[in-house]
Amino acid sequence: MKRRDFIQKAGVGSLAVGAALTNSKSANASPQFKWKMVTAWPKNFPGLGTNANLLAKMITDMSGGRIKIKVYGAKELVPAFEVFDAVSKGVAEMGHSGAYYWKGKSEATQFFSAVPFGLTAQEMNAWLYYGGGMELWRELYKPFGLIPTATGNTGVQMAGWFNREINALSDLKGLKMRIPGLGGEVLKQAGGTPVSLPGGEIFTSLQSGAIDASEWVGPYNDLAFGLYKAAKYYYYPGWHEPGTTLECFINEKAMSDLPKDLQVIVKQACRIANQDMLAEYTARNNKALHTLVNKHKVQLKPLPNDVLKRLKKLSDEVVGDVAAKDPMSKKVYQSFTKFREQVVAWHDISERAYLNARKL
Amino acid sequence: MKRRDFIQKAGVGSLAVGAALTNSKSANASPQFKWKMVTAWPKNFPGLGTNANLLAKMITDMSGGRIKIKVYGAKELVPAFEVFDAVSKGVAEMGHSGAYYWKGKSEATQFFSAVPFGLTAQEMNAWLYYGGGMELWRELYKPFGLIPTATGNTGVQMAGWFNREINALSDLKGLKMRIPGLGGEVLKQAGGTPVSLPGGEIFTSLQSGAIDASEWVGPYNDLAFGLYKAAKYYYYPGWHEPGTTLECFINEKAMSDLPKDLQVIVKQACRIANQDMLAEYTARNNKALHTLVNKHKVQLKPLPNDVLKRLKKLSDEVVGDVAAKDPMSKKVYQSFTKFREQVVAWHDISERAYLNARKL
Repeated sequence: MKRRDFIQKAGVGSLAVGAALTNSKSANASPQFKWKMVTAWPKNFPGLGTNANLLAKMITDMSGGRIKIKVYGAKELVPAFEVFDAVSKGVAEMGHSGAYYWKGKSEATQFFSAVPFGLTAQEMNAWLYYGGGMELWRELYKPFGLIPTATGNTGVQMAGWFNREINALSDLKGLKMRIPGLGGEVLKQAGGTPVSLPGGEIFTSLQSGAIDASEWVGPYNDLAFGLYKAAKYYYYPGWHEPGTTLECFINEKAMSDLPKDLQVIVKQACRIANQDMLAEYTARNNKALHTLVNKHKVQLKPLPNDVLKRLKKLSDEVVGDVAAKDPMSKKVYQSFTKFREQVVAWHDISERAYLNARKL
Repeated sequence: MKRRDFIQKAGVGSLAVGAALTNSKSANASPQFKWKMVTAWPKNFPGLGTNANLLAKMITDMSGGRIKIKVYGAKELVPAFEVFDAVSKGVAEMGHSGAYYWKGKSEATQFFSAVPFGLTAQEMNAWLYYGGGMELWRELYKPFGLIPTATGNTGVQMAGWFNREINALSDLKGLKMRIPGLGGEVLKQAGGTPVSLPGGEIFTSLQSGAIDASEWVGPYNDLAFGLYKAAKYYYYPGWHEPGTTLECFINEKAMSDLPKDLQVIVKQACRIANQDMLAEYTARNNKALHTLVNKHKVQLKPLPNDVLKRLKKLSDEVVGDVAAKDPMSKKVYQSFTKFREQVVAWHDISERAYLNARKL
């Protein structure tokens, strides 16, 4: 569009200059930036996919229509596990996924999604924004030409769907389970076989018996996939994913092509999406749990304390091993572990003490 | 500024049209909206005052300098407890405070800040954004010409500073304590005398013996006020404020004068500030606690289980009484209480089960 056309459409003359030039109606008619967002989730999948849609819409609204973003589900443009490379190469400007999917790039990525017996959602955000976490994440993605942001959190997940009862740690021996990242490593140490599968392939694998168990997210998402039809027991709590952070990374070059205010809008919109997803899951998990238990007669089971205790010991070893892989993993591990120690001490007399007091 | 000057300064011709017209440099040179934000906190007070500053800056940055906001500490333009009326009357465009300060306007306001044995930060956001809370809050502030937003959360607070040991509920009899909102009502039912004081007046009142005890926020803020110099015991957990929400309300008329995209930016910036404060407090409380205990030799004490149990019973009665005050309070009470019941059930097997598992 030529300058003259733009100014005519924007209606300069009848309105104050600034307001008119940024008027959302006129801006909507002519977006200056058309972006693509590739995601690791089925298109419009509740919570994960819809968060990507929400993020795209917020950026458009806050920018007065100057950025338009088209969201692609997994496989629509690239497969779920190729989102990282696609944005790194500039095939798309943004990618929406979970950092532990990229442990093949660097083991350190896992600290930015979920760590067994690690941080809750509230604690993750504290580490990222006020504990040095974001700076390390940016350093980690820099060589790939990507700018990372935290874009959602599921809260404490469920331990998963099992076709075998878990009464002792030995019951995990030989268990073939879909469980990504460090949680999978812990399962391996306990004698099980971790399997990596995109969300969209869990149901059939569980139903066919190709896997014995699977974790996914929590009631809200697990109900949507119908996992209750394919497994007997639903275990809690999600020791392996106590506050899983979702991510949206942005191609560095695409970001630098934006004017300063749009750069701020893109980054800040991710923070809103981060908070929004946690609020959504917190509100919707309980209703879904109710449906699972009362309508679908799902058997809800707590992991025995002794199993949790032993998983914690194995987790500490597995997470410690990551530090030995490379200097960057060590740096991230040290920052994360120090922060965890401090925040656990504080939350022991605040969040935990309160949640227990409420149940007295 | 004339249109021609504006276009020349923005450098149209050498840059893409959209980028140039929204270039933040040019916009910064001529803000179209100059707003005032009055706050209930001492100027630049850590966490509360700095959150207001951050919010103002974010709005300016995201708007490419089209809105500039001057932040006023308590008493600079109006006293702490007159912030609500000031923005309602248009003396300032925005106000930063806590909704329970306005229980004189409507008892229902208290549900939007802190409810004894109510919701945690994560749960509050879930209720506000996905449980119907925000809609009710908007309805409540509408008659005052104000648009409310949640703009911060302290997380679970401390029970407070005491110059008397609390071993039984009877120890609260005759206790003169600074404690606002519904927590104060509960104290009254337990035989104590609640006092309402702005934060800035707590220290001297506690030191002079005008009050026997005071709650404020948590280690980060309490250390900043030096409260440890004026009281013997530091009790936990903050049963009366388990996830205190801060607010920023906006004058409705001022908001409607903004173009659509700036309206979205103002509202969404408040959501970022909301998340940011919780992250800040979560990260900084522990370090402050460490300083209080190790450097200043503060005696940290848990409220006995029996006291908490009885306070919970009194709290349920007091909160229930609010519902009887007027139809709006009843409506908010019912929404809040129903949501609490559901989210407590879910968090019992997720957040709470996990925090306890981590300590096994």
